[in-house]
Amino acid sequence: MSSETPVDIGDRARPARADARRNLDALLQAAKEVFATTGVEAPVREITERAGVGNATLYRHFPRRADLIAAVFRREIDACADAAPALAAEYAPFEALAHWTRRFADFVATKRGLASALHCGDPAYDGLYAHFEERLRPAFRNLFGAARAAGVIRGDVEAEDLLEAVKNLCMGADVANPGRAQRMVDIFIDGLRSDAGR
Amino acid sequence: MSSETPVDIGDRARPARADARRNLDALLQAAKEVFATTGVEAPVREITERAGVGNATLYRHFPRRADLIAAVFRREIDACADAAPALAAEYAPFEALAHWTRRFADFVATKRGLASALHCGDPAYDGLYAHFEERLRPAFRNLFGAARAAGVIRGDVEAEDLLEAVKNLCMGADVANPGRAQRMVDIFIDGLRSDAGR
Repeated sequence: MSSETPVDIGDRARPARADARRNLDALLQAAKEVFATTGVEAPVREITERAGVGNATLYRHFPRRADLIAAVFRREIDACADAAPALAAEYAPFEALAHWTRRFADFVATKRGLASALHCGDPAYDGLYAHFEERLRPAFRNLFGAARAAGVIRGDVEAEDLLEAVKNLCMGADVANPGRAQRMVDIFIDGLRSDAGR
Repeated sequence: MSSETPVDIGDRARPARADARRNLDALLQAAKEVFATTGVEAPVREITERAGVGNATLYRHFPRRADLIAAVFRREIDACADAAPALAAEYAPFEALAHWTRRFADFVATKRGLASALHCGDPAYDGLYAHFEERLRPAFRNLFGAARAAGVIRGDVEAEDLLEAVKNLCMGADVANPGRAQRMVDIFIDGLRSDAGR
């Protein structure tokens, strides 16, 4: 905190790297928010202004829009995957699964245009599906398995069913009615309880 | 039952009309079943053989495939609409709504290819959407309204939400896994109960 703190002059790169990291984070966060509202074809300016960085910074990190889209998606997959163990540590099995499923639904519902971008065949997206499989699916399976082992979810539903149902319920999530997909997912989650159907 | 039963010779048309009606019903039922398994492009022979009628009968009633598809869809809408008051009379409000919703899900999940046929612009389909709106939607709204009035469904869901959720959950209903969409709808229905989220 004090300006008297000894500085390792031999490592001048460190603050520059920290700045670059901050700019990158700000860009990815801004892009995520803009994509969610305006879509992945949003004007670059809308993203850089929100991030508080210049166009040059954007283009240095992401020469093409596809690179930015892929990076946003990858970061979201990581954040969603990282949330799983954190929720498992904090909540009982059903609540951990419920929180995570809402988080995942939010991810699915707000990635406007990302899905079609992913299917356009651009090599920037190579590996994203594998990343989803490697990071997100195991994180989810752990939560689902814990809830199953605790006997708190009904026996006739599989992990895949739940992911699929959330994707379907968020399909065509309505920008004019942003809460609807989430409410539908909430209802589905309540129906998952082993004692829901009486 | 007895061959001695007096017959009104003056009304020879009656048995012929009854036969025609029976053939028509058999055709529509067969077409519905074949469309559900093979799709709306199924060979005509598969339909006539199942119905036990000749090709001439099929073509007399339905000169073009679009006419047959439209008739199957219209009959299904009617059956689904007619089920609503019958279920309301037999069951308590939640159960009536649950039964009907499963019936509707079955209708949505098994109409393979019908949706895309409907969007091809063939005039045979004119009026089908209006028929859905006129017959199915009010029937459903009555059941939903009764459940709402009885306080047995959660307050944050609207009739439209439920129809939309069922359509989404049945989207891409898997022929290899025919029970999945129905199980997903069951889970959703359980989540609808006003006391489901504890």
